[in-house]
Formats: sequence, C-alpha cells, structure tokens
Amino acid sequence: MKIAFIGIGVMGLPMAGHLLGAGHELNVFTRTPSKAEPLAKEGARVFDAIAPCVQGREAIITMVGFPRDVEEVYLGHGGIIKSAPKGALAIDMTTTSPALWEKIAMAARQKGLRPLDAPVSGGDSGARAGTLAIMVGGAAADFEAALPLFQKMGRNIVHEGPDGAGQHTKMANQIAIAGAVAGVAEAIRYGEAAGLDLEKLLATISTGAAGSWQMSNNGPKMVSGDFAPGFFIKHFVKDLSIAHEESKDRDLKLPILGKALKLYAAMGDAGKGELGTQAIIEAYRGENGEG
Amino acid sequence: MKIAFIGIGVMGLPMAGHLLGAGHELNVFTRTPSKAEPLAKEGARVFDAIAPCVQGREAIITMVGFPRDVEEVYLGHGGIIKSAPKGALAIDMTTTSPALWEKIAMAARQKGLRPLDAPVSGGDSGARAGTLAIMVGGAAADFEAALPLFQKMGRNIVHEGPDGAGQHTKMANQIAIAGAVAGVAEAIRYGEAAGLDLEKLLATISTGAAGSWQMSNNGPKMVSGDFAPGFFIKHFVKDLSIAHEESKDRDLKLPILGKALKLYAAMGDAGKGELGTQAIIEAYRGENGEG
Repeated sequence: MKIAFIGIGVMGLPMAGHLLGAGHELNVFTRTPSKAEPLAKEGARVFDAIAPCVQGREAIITMVGFPRDVEEVYLGHGGIIKSAPKGALAIDMTTTSPALWEKIAMAARQKGLRPLDAPVSGGDSGARAGTLAIMVGGAAADFEAALPLFQKMGRNIVHEGPDGAGQHTKMANQIAIAGAVAGVAEAIRYGEAAGLDLEKLLATISTGAAGSWQMSNNGPKMVSGDFAPGFFIKHFVKDLSIAHEESKDRDLKLPILGKALKLYAAMGDAGKGELGTQAIIEAYRGENGEG
Repeated sequence: MKIAFIGIGVMGLPMAGHLLGAGHELNVFTRTPSKAEPLAKEGARVFDAIAPCVQGREAIITMVGFPRDVEEVYLGHGGIIKSAPKGALAIDMTTTSPALWEKIAMAARQKGLRPLDAPVSGGDSGARAGTLAIMVGGAAADFEAALPLFQKMGRNIVHEGPDGAGQHTKMANQIAIAGAVAGVAEAIRYGEAAGLDLEKLLATISTGAAGSWQMSNNGPKMVSGDFAPGFFIKHFVKDLSIAHEESKDRDLKLPILGKALKLYAAMGDAGKGELGTQAIIEAYRGENGEG
C-alpha cells in the first residue's frame, strides 16, 4: 500500500519500520528529519512538508505528541484534510482528545477521506516488538481496510465503535491505570511507613486480589527507586487531563481520576515530567503529598 | 496438635475443617454453636465459653469479625490472655487493627503466650480450597512452630516481620485493592457514558498495563450487574477504616485510600454493606457519586 507516515518519534519509528519491512511504500514527514534517517536507509522517502508527503497516498498514519499537534497536522494550513487524496484512510494513532477527533473525522468525511482513530497501548517496547494493543474507532469497512496495516504493528486489535470510540477506550484504559498505579504507590508508602520489608510485601500481595500489571511491573521500580521512563509522566498528565475534560463534559464525577491527575500534574509542574509514572511514589514521600 | 479454634464463620469453618481433617485435635468456640455442627460431626468438641475451650491447648487460633471482637476474645473477661496455658501459640487470623494487635501481643507475651498475627487473603473460596495467602507477624521461632498449621490452610505463607507486620501487610493489600477496584469502576463508568461496548472495552484493556485481578474478576460483574458478594462492602469499609487510621497515626496522606473509603462508607451507610465490593460501580451511577 502507498502510505504516508507522519510523526517519527520513539513510537512512530518502529511502527513505520514494521510497515516498511512488510513491503509497503512509505513517505514520511517528521519535525526533526534526522529521526527519519533509519527509515530513509530502508527506502522511505522523507518530506519537509505534509502536502507533498500525503499526495497520492492510500493511507495516512499520524503518530504525533499532543492534541495541538494532531489538530495542526490535520486541520492546519497545508494539513492532511486539505491535501490528502479522496478515498485515503486517515488514521490517527496518537492518544488524543475524543472530542477533537470527532471534529477532525467530520471534516475528513466531508473531504471524502476515511478517518480512523486508533490509539495504542504497549509503549515503545510494544511498538518495537509489533505487539501493541490497538483500539479503533470509525466505520467498519474502513477498519477492515486498515486491518492489514494494524496487524503489522500490533496484536490485540479491536474495532470498538464509531468515530472517537478508539480514543474513548484509551481514556478508559488510562483511568484504570491511574487507580491501579496510585493504589500500588499508596500501598508501598504505607508499608514503608509501617516498617515492612517491601520486597516481601510485593511478593506476598502481588499474586492475589491486589495484583495488577502496575504492581508487577512498576511496584519493584518504586521500591528500588528506578524512575527511568517506561511511560512519561508528562504524557500521562496529557491523557488524564483529556479524560478529566471528557468526564466533566458528561457530568461524570470520577474522584480517583481527579486525585491521580492532581498528583501527576504537580509532579509535572515540579519538573518531573520526564520521569516514568512509577515516580508517583515520590509524591507520597515529599512535602507535596496531599490528602 | 491440640488446637482451640475460635470463630466458626464463612472463613473459620473451612479453615478449622482442614486442621481437623489433618488429624489435629480440635476444640471450638463460636457465638452461634449451630455453625460448629459440621465440625462436631467430625470429632471436634464444641464449647460454650472461651476459658474451657483453650485449656490445655498448644495453639489457639482466632478468626472473628471486627476489631472489637478480637479485643473481647483476647482481653475480655474469661478471654484468651487470662485463660490460655503458658507456651501456647496465640494466632489471630482476623483482619484487624495493627495497633490493637500490638497491644494484645504485648499482653500475651507477658503471660508467656506466643502471639502471631496472621490475616489472610483469598476469601471464602480460598479458605475452602486451602489456598489462602497468609501474612504473618511475630517471632520467627513461633512462625516456624505454627507453619505446619498454616500449610493446611494456605499456600502463599510469608513471615513478614515482628508483631503487627502481618496486619500491616494486609492493610497494604487492601489499599492497593482500593485503588485498583475504584479505577476499574471509573473506567467502566467512563466507557458507559461515552457509549462504548463495555465487554469489548474490558477485553481490549484487561491484557495490558491497565490489567489487574480486580479488572478480570470484578470488571465483568460490574458490567453485568452481578453484585453477589465475593468480598462484602461492610468488611472492606472495616479494613479501609483501619488502614486510614493507621495512616493518620503516621502522618501519611493517602488520597486514593481516602476517596475509596468515602465512597464505600457511603454505600455501607446506604444499606449496601452486604453487597460485594464490585457494587462500587453503583456509587458512580447514582446521585451519591461525588468528586
């Protein structure tokens, strides 16, 4: 397939690489062209603007950073909506605002494009291994058309519903993570204050009803003080902020989400946005801890 | 071994049954003697007071309901501290207050008893199957002496540390559950309000970084409205209240614990204490939802 891939970061690079490796013909655009060099060596064509990059393409895939970036690449001057050829799949794999995506999807349909929102989970290791979970919103026929591409990048690939359903699923995922990771941090902080052996604590409680991916993967890192990012705090703040906004729009009151957002936002404000989400344990140790 | 087992409820009955089945000589005391009938048929002797029940016993095991019950059976008139023979193991398997247990353990040592706090997790199904996790505090030699008894009732059996360390471990376990289960409920409530297919949602997100025992086991029950108790809300309120008190005593601020306790306590106050903890989803649907 003739593909344009926009956004070659820590996620986009391996994802685009899988498509290239499967024999697809790849155009790429990214704000820092040097990041696309490994793809160029494998035959991808690198562009310095979106309009020529998407010209004549059957599928356009975007994997950028924040909602403002999504808005710009789709709706901006010389962006995808203006420049992509009629009939092309327009697939955003960024985690972004469901409300923003619904606006973009409507504009895309009016131009004859086929929009899909398809955020992922699994992190950079999942992107490299091609084992991402991909949560897809949009028309069923468009999902089917894009499925062979998704299958090169991920494993657990689900058509969740209409436009925005992929983003909403990702939001629900992040909300569940927020409760789980904060619960693990509070359990460890409690155990620490009570004088427990924290390794024994985790070994005891991680196999039962308190067990979770967060406990098994981030619990030991909290205990050992390994705050290297598997998932950046700054990105989690973005995601939880979107989920919080969407909740407010629906008059939902989700206090655990609210508290977790507050703790993580405070860490971001304190310059810790480049740490991994497990660093939340620090918020409970410092004077910033708040009840 | 000559054992006295005090408290024959939904947990105590199968636990005592495993000891009896292993050939131990069992005295039992329980407030509702009819509950001990299945044990009496297998040869246990049923008593109508604690003092004669514990006389001449090598190990006394208690599995009662609330901290006030623990206080009464140990420190009350004719209780274990006054009546048990010197050298006996005094093992409380109730989930109770660590501070209360430290007080009881001190009194027990002064009388020459060997106290162990050994709360469990795994619920009534784990008790019946003999697969409970058992978290033990107390002296190492006493833990070793009691281990053959624990091995009849459970599998993941850990000596966590000194007096109270078992109870503190259980508290940490409950704190982690609070975050996880509330996160699952908020994720489902969000998905519901966003119009997602909730079964697809859980199938998508339960295998990744949002996954947890709570999501896999209580998530589907939240979606289907099955609120039959695996673990009673009234008992969870007890446990989280104890954890909250212990946290306050240590100047810890654990906001996720605080919010979860508030939500569950409100459900208990509304007469829903006999439902399972998954019924928390109702708190997010009703007017009681609060942010």
